[in-house]
Amino acid sequence: MLVAIALFPRVTALDAVGPYEVLQRVPELDVVFTGENRGEVRTDNGFLGLTVDASFDEVPAPDVVVVPGGIGTADLLGGGPYLDWLRAVHPGTRFTTSVCSGSLALAAAGLLNGLTATCHWGFAEHLRRFGAVPVQERVVTHPDRRIITAAGVSAGIDMAIQLVSLLVDDVAAQATQVYIEYDPQPPFDAGHPGKVGAAVMERVGEYAKARP
Amino acid sequence: MLVAIALFPRVTALDAVGPYEVLQRVPELDVVFTGENRGEVRTDNGFLGLTVDASFDEVPAPDVVVVPGGIGTADLLGGGPYLDWLRAVHPGTRFTTSVCSGSLALAAAGLLNGLTATCHWGFAEHLRRFGAVPVQERVVTHPDRRIITAAGVSAGIDMAIQLVSLLVDDVAAQATQVYIEYDPQPPFDAGHPGKVGAAVMERVGEYAKARP
Repeated sequence: MLVAIALFPRVTALDAVGPYEVLQRVPELDVVFTGENRGEVRTDNGFLGLTVDASFDEVPAPDVVVVPGGIGTADLLGGGPYLDWLRAVHPGTRFTTSVCSGSLALAAAGLLNGLTATCHWGFAEHLRRFGAVPVQERVVTHPDRRIITAAGVSAGIDMAIQLVSLLVDDVAAQATQVYIEYDPQPPFDAGHPGKVGAAVMERVGEYAKARP
Repeated sequence: MLVAIALFPRVTALDAVGPYEVLQRVPELDVVFTGENRGEVRTDNGFLGLTVDASFDEVPAPDVVVVPGGIGTADLLGGGPYLDWLRAVHPGTRFTTSVCSGSLALAAAGLLNGLTATCHWGFAEHLRRFGAVPVQERVVTHPDRRIITAAGVSAGIDMAIQLVSLLVDDVAAQATQVYIEYDPQPPFDAGHPGKVGAAVMERVGEYAKARP
């Protein structure tokens, strides 16, 4: 099976690399990083370059699609090669998935019409503009529509483990989890706005302004 | 403050990108991906290219160093530019850190002599060869020696959040956590060999053999 992770300028690196790191462990899955053009794309802040190895026209029939989010998502939503490719390949996939604001791209491509979906907490309400129904869940799975959306950034890891259980089996999913030692022990219980106080959210606002 | 993430051929992407995604949110921190030579390095299986933006001689005085792990770690341990750079810059850092088998590189550079340290569960015992004392912890911090080691692959996220609390403050650390929505909900409790059965470990063995 071929997994295509679709990059774009100003992507959030962990949105893409979290799922990649889980999925690449499974020998039945090959992973290709695709995008409009071959070559380097830079992440949201420009600090990291990731390579697009195959342009969209070289990846016409992936079995799984992963759409990461990032600041650059905003530039995709008006239409163009990225959404065209999503619309073209989705009918043939086993699962079309997103992480973070990537669900806005799925929605803008018309793939989430009437569906519940999740997104980074900061962007979830925008899903309504494109006919989707935002819900605050870590991962939302619609097996009948072959669509899976994950919440912000790090949620792609949880999503990908679940995806392996759907594509292969539960033993495979757990094997990927122990392989990447995903036994999370964050030093704080601060992973969602509902879990932190005003001082933390104020700091997030400052950081977002300083480094958009 | 400058954070240098030191890449090498056959690095594990999430080891590097997990900490990057946390640290890059903090405006006080700039991040540079460094390595022996500028240009692309490919990850352990070759599926992803990451860009080295500055060679080691261009990064002589980083404030923080992050050493990821990966299959390619084995090629570093005999000595060469990577270990030479670690030895040269460590005296000037605020923290020199590692993720996964990256702690073997710190140890081979002589930075873990007599210290407890952690590592990916599959490689922890190798620490002894280089004078370190392996312990099964998610993150091991030695503030007096300015050394922090993290367990396998995904543990770099936990490590980096803790690092932000040391470099800035707890509010900053929690701000990065909520920003990347690190509210882990793995679908299984399978993050460590002690938590899974023989069938899962057998599958890990098969996967490691099929895709080393």
